[in-house]
Amino acid sequence: MATYKLIISYDGTGYHGFQYQENAYTVQEALEKALKKLYGEAIRVGAAGRTDAGVHARGQVVSFRASSQVPGTRLKQALNGILPKDIVVVEAGEVAGTFLSRRDARGKVYTYTIDNGPYPDVFRRNYAWYLPYRLDLEKMQKAAVYFQGEHDFKAFQAAGSPVKTTVRTISSLTVNRANNIIVLCFEGNGFLYKMVRRITGTLVKVGQGKRTIEDIQEALICAKRRNAGPTAPARGLCLEKVFY
Amino acid sequence: MATYKLIISYDGTGYHGFQYQENAYTVQEALEKALKKLYGEAIRVGAAGRTDAGVHARGQVVSFRASSQVPGTRLKQALNGILPKDIVVVEAGEVAGTFLSRRDARGKVYTYTIDNGPYPDVFRRNYAWYLPYRLDLEKMQKAAVYFQGEHDFKAFQAAGSPVKTTVRTISSLTVNRANNIIVLCFEGNGFLYKMVRRITGTLVKVGQGKRTIEDIQEALICAKRRNAGPTAPARGLCLEKVFY
Repeated sequence: MATYKLIISYDGTGYHGFQYQENAYTVQEALEKALKKLYGEAIRVGAAGRTDAGVHARGQVVSFRASSQVPGTRLKQALNGILPKDIVVVEAGEVAGTFLSRRDARGKVYTYTIDNGPYPDVFRRNYAWYLPYRLDLEKMQKAAVYFQGEHDFKAFQAAGSPVKTTVRTISSLTVNRANNIIVLCFEGNGFLYKMVRRITGTLVKVGQGKRTIEDIQEALICAKRRNAGPTAPARGLCLEKVFY
Repeated sequence: MATYKLIISYDGTGYHGFQYQENAYTVQEALEKALKKLYGEAIRVGAAGRTDAGVHARGQVVSFRASSQVPGTRLKQALNGILPKDIVVVEAGEVAGTFLSRRDARGKVYTYTIDNGPYPDVFRRNYAWYLPYRLDLEKMQKAAVYFQGEHDFKAFQAAGSPVKTTVRTISSLTVNRANNIIVLCFEGNGFLYKMVRRITGTLVKVGQGKRTIEDIQEALICAKRRNAGPTAPARGLCLEKVFY
């Protein structure tokens, strides 16, 4: 048996998320179909981050085992020839047999993109959250600092996701603007279900003047869910990188 | 009767070009449908540039006449509420009754985008021509200069497009690279059918070392079609701006 690691990029618009579902087309299904064609056997893949429907990736990491050995460059080329055009293999190679993309991940980088122009950019309609109103960037940047470090992010997770602990560390959270585009960049050791989108929703409320730094502090210390903002839509979210 | 001018942006991926066709969905049809809903009467629009299937626009200009008066800001808002998400009105307003978007256009800017990275950028798959091989940017930039000025571009038009003259003036043609993306920017008083895509195809051949500056000079002077390169695919092309 050989173990492989793939770094993949995908446009999540046409998929019901990464993970296999009975009645919906997912990235996992498309990937496993291509691998079956290539290896001639049923292959099950695991991903570092189980992105939701409409969420994108530039650096998703996938691992799988197969009975035959294929060199990395050939694997990459072959898969890119078979896969649908909205999934691309960026890197491929054999790794140690113990490697598991999800369990071994030590950190992740996500970006969230907001289109804040006077009219929606048609070319970003599937890759950004369009918000026509004025956002105070400085307020958002100041508030972002309070999310950094180790906190109990219970108020910022979506209900009904069973986890052992809701404590996570965000090592960096930046908010930057270039023309009409605002990009929030999250780096951390792990993220709860919908946590990035909830923090984004909260920071947008701060930018509108509808939430304060005190609201965030309270939400983090007392796990007050009502202090958090709404969940930002999936399309603005992108898994950029996974650290090992 | 009131005459209106719209500046529109669209993702051409889902359309069979701008102009109305009997059996295919076009930008014109989508626009006229929205205008009929808004004005309650059949409205015929004209566009400055008749973009082909798959070609995009950031600054297409459209004119039409209607029997009722609607203020520009309301027209823009109302249309953006009705139009499909891949067409957006950037600007709208009433203009002099003599205005015709196509006849009055004095110049246009088109860009052509090439994705020249080690693997295709999934987020640009509909907006760029992916070329994996090495392109010599300096050679392309030097060759681009020879297209500038007034020339007979007969060798660079697609066959079967009846025009009075094939002489056009390209006032500026630049080639720039930022990371993996190469953008060619064309500014001129008018362009023949598929001319931008043919010049792009030729400059790509120059970048590969398969065409020389002499080939271009000959093509421009002697209208030698075989010296020109292939027609670059529609998806990399975007109508950026129309001058009046």
